Amino acid sequence: MSRSTSPTPSEGPGDGHLLRADLIAAQYRSELLSHLQEPTFRARAPTLVGVLSTAQEPARRYAEFTQRMCEELGVRYVLKEVGGARGGRDGEGAEEAVIEANEDESVDGIMVYYPIFGGGQDQYLQQVVSPLKDVEGLNFRFHYNLYHNIRFLKPSQLLKHNPLLPSDDPVTEGDHPPPGYVKSILPCTPLAVVKCLEYAGVYNRLLRYGDRAYGKTVTVVNRSEVVGRPLAALLSNDGARVFSVDLDGIQEYTKRPKEEKVRKYHPRHVVQPVQTELKDCLAISDVVISAVPSKEYKIKTEWLKDGCVCVNVASEKNFETDVKTRAALYIPAVGKVTITMLLRNLLRLREYNELAAAAATPPAPSTSSLIDRS
Amino acid sequence: MSRSTSPTPSEGPGDGHLLRADLIAAQYRSELLSHLQEPTFRARAPTLVGVLSTAQEPARRYAEFTQRMCEELGVRYVLKEVGGARGGRDGEGAEEAVIEANEDESVDGIMVYYPIFGGGQDQYLQQVVSPLKDVEGLNFRFHYNLYHNIRFLKPSQLLKHNPLLPSDDPVTEGDHPPPGYVKSILPCTPLAVVKCLEYAGVYNRLLRYGDRAYGKTVTVVNRSEVVGRPLAALLSNDGARVFSVDLDGIQEYTKRPKEEKVRKYHPRHVVQPVQTELKDCLAISDVVISAVPSKEYKIKTEWLKDGCVCVNVASEKNFETDVKTRAALYIPAVGKVTITMLLRNLLRLREYNELAAAAATPPAPSTSSLIDRS
Repeated sequence: MSRSTSPTPSEGPGDGHLLRADLIAAQYRSELLSHLQEPTFRARAPTLVGVLSTAQEPARRYAEFTQRMCEELGVRYVLKEVGGARGGRDGEGAEEAVIEANEDESVDGIMVYYPIFGGGQDQYLQQVVSPLKDVEGLNFRFHYNLYHNIRFLKPSQLLKHNPLLPSDDPVTEGDHPPPGYVKSILPCTPLAVVKCLEYAGVYNRLLRYGDRAYGKTVTVVNRSEVVGRPLAALLSNDGARVFSVDLDGIQEYTKRPKEEKVRKYHPRHVVQPVQTELKDCLAISDVVISAVPSKEYKIKTEWLKDGCVCVNVASEKNFETDVKTRAALYIPAVGKVTITMLLRNLLRLREYNELAAAAATPPAPSTSSLIDRS
Repeated sequence: MSRSTSPTPSEGPGDGHLLRADLIAAQYRSELLSHLQEPTFRARAPTLVGVLSTAQEPARRYAEFTQRMCEELGVRYVLKEVGGARGGRDGEGAEEAVIEANEDESVDGIMVYYPIFGGGQDQYLQQVVSPLKDVEGLNFRFHYNLYHNIRFLKPSQLLKHNPLLPSDDPVTEGDHPPPGYVKSILPCTPLAVVKCLEYAGVYNRLLRYGDRAYGKTVTVVNRSEVVGRPLAALLSNDGARVFSVDLDGIQEYTKRPKEEKVRKYHPRHVVQPVQTELKDCLAISDVVISAVPSKEYKIKTEWLKDGCVCVNVASEKNFETDVKTRAALYIPAVGKVTITMLLRNLLRLREYNELAAAAATPPAPSTSSLIDRS
């Protein structure tokens, strides 16, 4: 990971550095730009459809932001406004817009601006997006792979129902998929946080792939299926000890549970509830990530471990203004990295689609370096 | 629908009849018994696995109840106790038990006793169950079909990802699937309520298939993805005008929206919010169904329309003890019908599996009458 660009100087009280998402996104942006020069993308620019179906101002702003990011890179962005976005009822026409984009061969990726209905109905809608166009990585099968630490898949598997069976999970060393396999798609926001932590030096590249967060203790506040739970799983699958905090209690996600008599290394994380209080989790956490969608929620600066890394994922600020009096690095927002990951998924899925379509013939290892990178 | 057996005489205050689920379940039980005499089921009894992973008493009782129902019919029931059901943590091992049952060729159906984690994580777990063993009908693809009023599918489609595309939806008259198609699987609890309403005479068999609840106004209290929303969709797809009530407001589900200038008949229901108060919905409702998991929640008897049909779906009683002073028919519980529908799904899925396995050869119309019935 290039660290040639330093974080911007400290702002506000404290010694800690403010680390802006632009800086972290920059390297992935240049990778994307170079990929977009490939003949296949020059012949037909990748196309992302954004489905905006509510009158909510943050959703509208996020859509404009996506559009700007796409246009800067030369990705075609098509905004589909339905329901509340054009004076109708929130959510009206959202499912139809997704289905239309699923069926439209000129569309490579679909992004839906949530929340729409909230809860179970949004989770239902996430499944309506074809996994072959699911740039947000919210399809059940990608979650299944993530929770099971299954990192590679065959593109043709996306045409079938079943999640990968254990026998299909190839044994690999390192982050290169074996012939015929590609990387699974990861949900954008959790992945963006991992990229931020890589940049921040939390991941140790001297350790082997799949265990580079070993030794780090992380607290993740929020355990939704969209952000918190996949993030806790991702980090613990990479070796971290993670405290997952939500209203219904605190859980520990780890590959190396302390309570077992014989210390055992699990191939994927195990989860157990703990009685530790938030305050005590924070006191030992090298990294604190918060994604609570509430203005009122604040993590007390005095509870943070001195020199930790803090990442604010919510659109509201979950950290107090003096967070840098304790945090060595504070990342106030990850949105730009999220969109960059989303666009990387877009290019990958375009390739996976082509591979899946050619699945009648035996799949050949892809020559695209994009596919091989983590 | 046979009405030869009358409801039990009135109990408690009021003139209304108490209609017990046993009576409604009886006819489907005898159909099941006769099907179980078929050579394929005699050669190998259909096997249902129940996954019990919590220490919750209602879940345990429901598991025992399922077991009893299975044994009475000659269906093999295997209880898998994990996590909280055997002194461990609630939910621990639930996903692994489901995966094991997915992969076990001797297992035809899987039933998971919810709630386990609650919310999004339970919805995730519902997707882990293979659709070919999903006797509860909670898989996303069955919900998709239900919401889109797609009533038939090809068994081989359950092996692929995509929900049925519109072009795949066969044009049919009546409830007989066209050659090569079988009926989609419906979620058990909403389906059980429909069966109760058929029995109660709410569905009019003189009307054409798919519109037999036309003219009826129904209030459904609860809009979860497991019970309330699919039930409202099912009833409105069958022609009813449905008020769907939950904490975040009241919606109308209908194929014939009143507000449109030119009265139009939609092939599937449309949904719109309404400002009508619960009291006013109840005042015009022929049927009131409540599924609120709370002892405190009660529907006021004085708000009911005289002579209506009331169905209590929650394990708690959502109606007041004097409900029969207004309701002509009161169905206090639907559990037995739910299990019967679940077992019918079990036999169907066993057949669908065989058809899907044979999908390399062109599918022939099934000779089983079970598949042809609604």
